[in-house]
Amino acid sequence: MKSYSVKELLEKQPLGDSVVVNGWVRTFRSNRFIALNDGSTIHNLQCVVDFENLEESLLKQINTGAALKVSGTLVASQGRGQSVEVQATDVYVHGGADPDTYPIQPKKHSLEFLREKAHLRVRTNTFSAVMRVRSALAFAVHSYFQQNGFYYMHAPIITGSDAEGAGEMFRVSVLDPKNPPLSASGDVDYEQDFFGKETNLTVSGQLEAETYAMGLGKVYTFGPTFRAENSNTSRHLAEFWMIEPEMAFYDLDANMDLAEDFVKWIIQYVLDNCQDDLQFLEKRLLDEEKSKPQHERSEMALIEKLKFVVDNNFKRVTYTEAIDILRNSKPNKKKKFQFPINEWGADLQSEHERFLVEKHFKCPVILFDYPANIKAFYMRLNEDGKTVRAMDVLFPGIGEIVGGSQREERLEVLQEKIKALDIDEKELWWYLDLRRFGTAVHSGFGLGFERVVQFVTGMGNIRDVIPYPRTPQNAEF
Amino acid sequence: MKSYSVKELLEKQPLGDSVVVNGWVRTFRSNRFIALNDGSTIHNLQCVVDFENLEESLLKQINTGAALKVSGTLVASQGRGQSVEVQATDVYVHGGADPDTYPIQPKKHSLEFLREKAHLRVRTNTFSAVMRVRSALAFAVHSYFQQNGFYYMHAPIITGSDAEGAGEMFRVSVLDPKNPPLSASGDVDYEQDFFGKETNLTVSGQLEAETYAMGLGKVYTFGPTFRAENSNTSRHLAEFWMIEPEMAFYDLDANMDLAEDFVKWIIQYVLDNCQDDLQFLEKRLLDEEKSKPQHERSEMALIEKLKFVVDNNFKRVTYTEAIDILRNSKPNKKKKFQFPINEWGADLQSEHERFLVEKHFKCPVILFDYPANIKAFYMRLNEDGKTVRAMDVLFPGIGEIVGGSQREERLEVLQEKIKALDIDEKELWWYLDLRRFGTAVHSGFGLGFERVVQFVTGMGNIRDVIPYPRTPQNAEF
Repeated sequence: MKSYSVKELLEKQPLGDSVVVNGWVRTFRSNRFIALNDGSTIHNLQCVVDFENLEESLLKQINTGAALKVSGTLVASQGRGQSVEVQATDVYVHGGADPDTYPIQPKKHSLEFLREKAHLRVRTNTFSAVMRVRSALAFAVHSYFQQNGFYYMHAPIITGSDAEGAGEMFRVSVLDPKNPPLSASGDVDYEQDFFGKETNLTVSGQLEAETYAMGLGKVYTFGPTFRAENSNTSRHLAEFWMIEPEMAFYDLDANMDLAEDFVKWIIQYVLDNCQDDLQFLEKRLLDEEKSKPQHERSEMALIEKLKFVVDNNFKRVTYTEAIDILRNSKPNKKKKFQFPINEWGADLQSEHERFLVEKHFKCPVILFDYPANIKAFYMRLNEDGKTVRAMDVLFPGIGEIVGGSQREERLEVLQEKIKALDIDEKELWWYLDLRRFGTAVHSGFGLGFERVVQFVTGMGNIRDVIPYPRTPQNAEF
Repeated sequence: MKSYSVKELLEKQPLGDSVVVNGWVRTFRSNRFIALNDGSTIHNLQCVVDFENLEESLLKQINTGAALKVSGTLVASQGRGQSVEVQATDVYVHGGADPDTYPIQPKKHSLEFLREKAHLRVRTNTFSAVMRVRSALAFAVHSYFQQNGFYYMHAPIITGSDAEGAGEMFRVSVLDPKNPPLSASGDVDYEQDFFGKETNLTVSGQLEAETYAMGLGKVYTFGPTFRAENSNTSRHLAEFWMIEPEMAFYDLDANMDLAEDFVKWIIQYVLDNCQDDLQFLEKRLLDEEKSKPQHERSEMALIEKLKFVVDNNFKRVTYTEAIDILRNSKPNKKKKFQFPINEWGADLQSEHERFLVEKHFKCPVILFDYPANIKAFYMRLNEDGKTVRAMDVLFPGIGEIVGGSQREERLEVLQEKIKALDIDEKELWWYLDLRRFGTAVHSGFGLGFERVVQFVTGMGNIRDVIPYPRTPQNAEF
């Protein structure tokens, strides 16, 4: 007898064949109908047992959550809801699940409750769908770049430099935590630490990715990054995965072209490969939003929203134009923005980004040429001396999803900026070397992977799109 | 004029077309022949300039390492060593590279020298080839699993539990390093730390992967893992990437089948997709070994060795059989082993593994059913009560490349083992839950990614197959 996954059986439908299938009981009705799921698909396989010929003791073990091996014949189903089913000739119980203690019973559980059971929540429809989509999205990222001549690069996780300043860092150490060795000056003596210097968890692989782009041409990172910020919101994690492509000989226009093409391609990949899960997640979102007032509900259903992004050209607008639009907008004049827009130079908040995307342009927007003083030091200064070649891609419902720039390739300009920020040039000696030897126009961007998973799955809280979220006061499992 | 990468130009050969190509000068001969490389391939593109019509100042900037944009016509080459070349009509210098200070000159550099210049070494043939192969191997890993019904899972990097005991850990903290807060008992008060508890960098994602396998069926991780061990060898890194598949309903035999099929597939992928780089690396290895005495040289050339792995069935042998073979082997009797094999229960060293693979069986070997007391607590106990369902895949030249096992699925047996090891059961409450609710036979293995890259590229030192190696006293860049 051949062994199949549930997905294979439902797709191939080898009617009349003797089959074996393993999985977990989702429900068991009328002592007769087992809905079996093995995680390969959102769909269950109906297995029909003849309770009159099953031992009572075995029958009692067929509870929600129990692991079974079912042998039988695949036949066309007479019932509604499935086209095929297994007429079981044998049922083996790998392991039971006591209904009195097993938390994942077939009823509605809140997402908050399931977060406490993060080791079991992937056994629910919602989380299995989210995590299958997450897996497909990750593969789409790799596939896109590999097909387009990029090389995957692993940027270091433990870093010896704190130069990028993208956020607060976690310290990595093996020194005695209570009585660390001190140097003659009375400070902690990191020379005695594992790496002989103070080290932290990376906040971004960009600077290292630049070193590789200046040798391999086009590279991308896809790895974990960290922020030790005390942000207890539905949009922030202390540990999250980031994708950072970096391309030699790309100016800002080429960078924007790439970002748009890339984001559309990975979303189209999920539309092509995860229809079942997306349909489930779309329905889940609709159900969830039924309890909300009309104006808080999504304007588009999930799949419609994804198609909207794929089918529309992203509108490209300078920061300066955007400020004009925002300053003269209704919500600004009626003081509806929490942060009113008064003058050029203001940093844009999520409310402004969403206004531009959802109300004004009604399509994804790429803002570019931002004021230099609200952006990072490595972004290329424009000829006007006050704006930099930065760009942000803004999405409906979520705001910024991509942030990138053309990089400052001129040694002297970069040195001046570093000096103005009081960063020790020695900290960045290797980064400056890229401008000393064979420098060239180059660009890149960063994409927070969990933000994309949130967008594609419609999950409201970022803690629900990563297996084991790390947030302030929470590193369980 | 259309812009091309060097790889595209050499593959497509659009003879007669006007083309633009960007890259870095590898060499410049006779004021006439530029060997241009952009990282897309190991091969250079010959660009021919007419020095009589070029400005003297521009000509002086065409040095090794300079970044150029060359426009011209692609023509068939009359010279040896290339089939096509660009007759340049225009040369633009993005950025020069002063020959007096640029370290990567066209001469032989030692690998040790280049490690100090890790931000520039990818501009050499050796490192660009290694890193392209590394990228292809990573994509092969994802492709294999995704094609075979596995879901990619991101295991957490920061972990709150130190239960696996796979090695020394790095502490992650934001507490004041010099004067940490103390609790009433006088210990460091981790309740005041970012996560409200003591946290470390993960040594393995396996336990968390098991939780996902018991919901999604077949999963794999591919992420960084860490060991704070003071091992200054050519085989150890403090930060390395690991691949850990985990499969519900797989016994040890199925696990061994998967490991063999997987390893062969990813090596075949590189053979199919990286021939140019492999040929270069094979030649590099031959050159390197010329200076070694005959008996230290590889028995097979690089590509031959890879084909050997792909074409041969891996020999499966129990630990007990292997001990018999080793005990009666010539090197053991002649006391040539550093660690003589006297009795059953001995842990195998690299020298023993390599003897089995290279001298005795002359093919890759899978050893299985190891003594319980030299393996981890989560491995399934055999009926003999003294061996566990562990397996290691052993490769020529490198020894263990895969380590895995069938997992202990029986709650009581696992609890006893945990107790015997003095691990607090509360630390593993979620791991034990997997055995409480719907437990089943399941298996998995781990593969150190850098070890595979070493094997495939023939690089002797693990520091040369990862962009920025982290080792004791070294976290530069």
